[in-house]
Amino acid sequence: MEKFNSPTLATMRGKAEVVLFPTSTEQTSAIVKYSGSMAVYDEIVINLSKMNKIHSIDQDSGAMVCDAGCILQDLDLHLSDYDLTMPLDLGAKGSCHIGGNISTNAGGIRYIKYGSLHGSVLGLKVVLPNGQILDNLSTLRKDSTGYDVKQLFIGAEGTLGIVTGVSILTHKKAKYCDLLSMDITLNGLEKTNPLAKMHNYYVFIETQGSHKEHDLEKIMGMFEELQEDGTIEDGIMAEDITQMAKIWELRESIITAHSKYGETYAMDLSLPTSKVETIVNDLKDFLEGLGVYDRTLSYKSSPKYVKEVTGFGHIGDGNLHLNVIVEKYQDSFTTTLEKFIFEYIQNLKGSISAEHGIGLLKPDFLHYSKSKEAIELMTIIKNSIDPKGIMNPYKVLPSS
Amino acid sequence: MEKFNSPTLATMRGKAEVVLFPTSTEQTSAIVKYSGSMAVYDEIVINLSKMNKIHSIDQDSGAMVCDAGCILQDLDLHLSDYDLTMPLDLGAKGSCHIGGNISTNAGGIRYIKYGSLHGSVLGLKVVLPNGQILDNLSTLRKDSTGYDVKQLFIGAEGTLGIVTGVSILTHKKAKYCDLLSMDITLNGLEKTNPLAKMHNYYVFIETQGSHKEHDLEKIMGMFEELQEDGTIEDGIMAEDITQMAKIWELRESIITAHSKYGETYAMDLSLPTSKVETIVNDLKDFLEGLGVYDRTLSYKSSPKYVKEVTGFGHIGDGNLHLNVIVEKYQDSFTTTLEKFIFEYIQNLKGSISAEHGIGLLKPDFLHYSKSKEAIELMTIIKNSIDPKGIMNPYKVLPSS
Repeated sequence: MEKFNSPTLATMRGKAEVVLFPTSTEQTSAIVKYSGSMAVYDEIVINLSKMNKIHSIDQDSGAMVCDAGCILQDLDLHLSDYDLTMPLDLGAKGSCHIGGNISTNAGGIRYIKYGSLHGSVLGLKVVLPNGQILDNLSTLRKDSTGYDVKQLFIGAEGTLGIVTGVSILTHKKAKYCDLLSMDITLNGLEKTNPLAKMHNYYVFIETQGSHKEHDLEKIMGMFEELQEDGTIEDGIMAEDITQMAKIWELRESIITAHSKYGETYAMDLSLPTSKVETIVNDLKDFLEGLGVYDRTLSYKSSPKYVKEVTGFGHIGDGNLHLNVIVEKYQDSFTTTLEKFIFEYIQNLKGSISAEHGIGLLKPDFLHYSKSKEAIELMTIIKNSIDPKGIMNPYKVLPSS
Repeated sequence: MEKFNSPTLATMRGKAEVVLFPTSTEQTSAIVKYSGSMAVYDEIVINLSKMNKIHSIDQDSGAMVCDAGCILQDLDLHLSDYDLTMPLDLGAKGSCHIGGNISTNAGGIRYIKYGSLHGSVLGLKVVLPNGQILDNLSTLRKDSTGYDVKQLFIGAEGTLGIVTGVSILTHKKAKYCDLLSMDITLNGLEKTNPLAKMHNYYVFIETQGSHKEHDLEKIMGMFEELQEDGTIEDGIMAEDITQMAKIWELRESIITAHSKYGETYAMDLSLPTSKVETIVNDLKDFLEGLGVYDRTLSYKSSPKYVKEVTGFGHIGDGNLHLNVIVEKYQDSFTTTLEKFIFEYIQNLKGSISAEHGIGLLKPDFLHYSKSKEAIELMTIIKNSIDPKGIMNPYKVLPSS
């Protein structure tokens, strides 16, 4: 578990005495049947890392069928042999399982181009709470026969069943971070600024085309236009894959770099693109008002409790990662911060979890992003599919 | 109701004595509450054509919020003022409601570019069977808080609730039809072939780019390559919007033209792209084996019961519209044809409804495309959300 996924994760420990590593859907089903009949809660962790085979790749349609325990980066690597690529990419790609990506409805940096997993996932194999295996591993692009039940499991965080197999549409990549994110990253990691000087905001754009000269002409045209009208001050274009990787490394190291200067409250918010800058400034005002932060001081030497407030994310789809670096996590500050942020987001009709799910920490805050009726409907679905409540208990839905 | 949606629709008549035209979600809710408490079935048709307002268009994100009764073509026309376009387009655009598109999980000709409605729909407002209003009209691109309950209503054909409001992601179009489809269309509509002579297969490709010269260069390059390697025999490129509309008209008139030569069994199938040609030929073999068809005779003068078998559709996403023109619909032939097609599709793990839903006609055939477990899960969801069974009864799920 990563410290940075959430403010209070630092205090979380698993209590399971048993971790099982099934090698097949049938074994997973047998485990669920057993634990269901025993009505034991919180005792079994099922790790699917041994279910990591790719079963088929259809080069015509791009449909790939694989086990849920496959690691995202391994899939992308394998697909590159077929000139294909995954519809999602994220910082944790070297360790995250595709099944976990689906269960948490992961977003990531290709979202703006390929859209959500609700569109990309073609089928799932799921072990239901009663041990039944729902084999829905369709490779069809289109299917309008009945309710699209697989959609329920995308983002359900395992509370309705265990995703063991995945059919996903693959394909043949924009980003934002502010001055402080960049400054912290360069200092924390002792990296060199690829631009001549520091600027207030940085945008990462990755394009993909079929014709190098055309692509170059278009991007250079855009640069010139944006520079002429004053939208951008400076820019750099990667000249090869190596340079591209170096630039991306900066973006992917932001959170790691934050850890050099304290403990970080890392929030994953969805809000209108026009409010992405506003919320960062409003939070700074709020924290200064509390006397715990001073924006004129450097995060390297500030004696205040809050060292710095930074924002970065996916500007194209309104997904802001908002970070507060503090000396040390404190429950009272957590409460204050959450109240401010969640109310702020509720007023904007935003979401308190854009791409990392609800998990154990946010169920009681679900009402900030979802209506009473929606939560009731979720509860009806949860109770009807998992009447014994054995699937990933205490997650997602508020305890009644 | 259109004759061509299905073989047996010609014999279908509605029996409702009351058609209501609510002008708001609240009125719709009041109707549902009333009919729920009365437990009257099959008596009320709710027509949302008076709920046809666009509420907001966000030019930054492309999110549009509108009433479910808006007509697809009107939405596209209105969006064009903002340089935006709908993520779906289909032949019925001049009359179909966006709410109906969503309830039937409509596909259409932009699917290959923009993907499924499960990815494009950002939020829905739904009147639930108990009259509750689920207001889920989010305009967020990303939201991972809990089950994505709106997904259940996409393609549920009204059996779980009535979609009254829609939030959808708009954006700033490939097709296939065989010789006989083209021949029937040209003859039936007395149109001129845009190419010098007839060919076995026709592909319609619509591209969209930001740079006219680049786009032209690429498409001409593709033409040359495909002609050199013998993939294509001839081609024509629309020189302006008028000519483009004329070419598209041919594609969109195929079904209308079929009606000049008899009654048409029109099937909407999803199958691997590599099998699209095979199934047409296998069906011809099957019908010739039965003695009801002779492929050497012209559909204009054949004395056989089956005049012609044609295939057209969306080759890019494996969606084939397979058509059998007969003298007159016959129940015994319907049974024979359905058995052949549904078993064929089941063997290929295809779907018997790619983009037109299940409706009243196909519930008993659902098992050809969905597993026992999936149908059980759909039934659990249906029963838990609509315990009285008042929403669009007898549709989608097989009667138990």
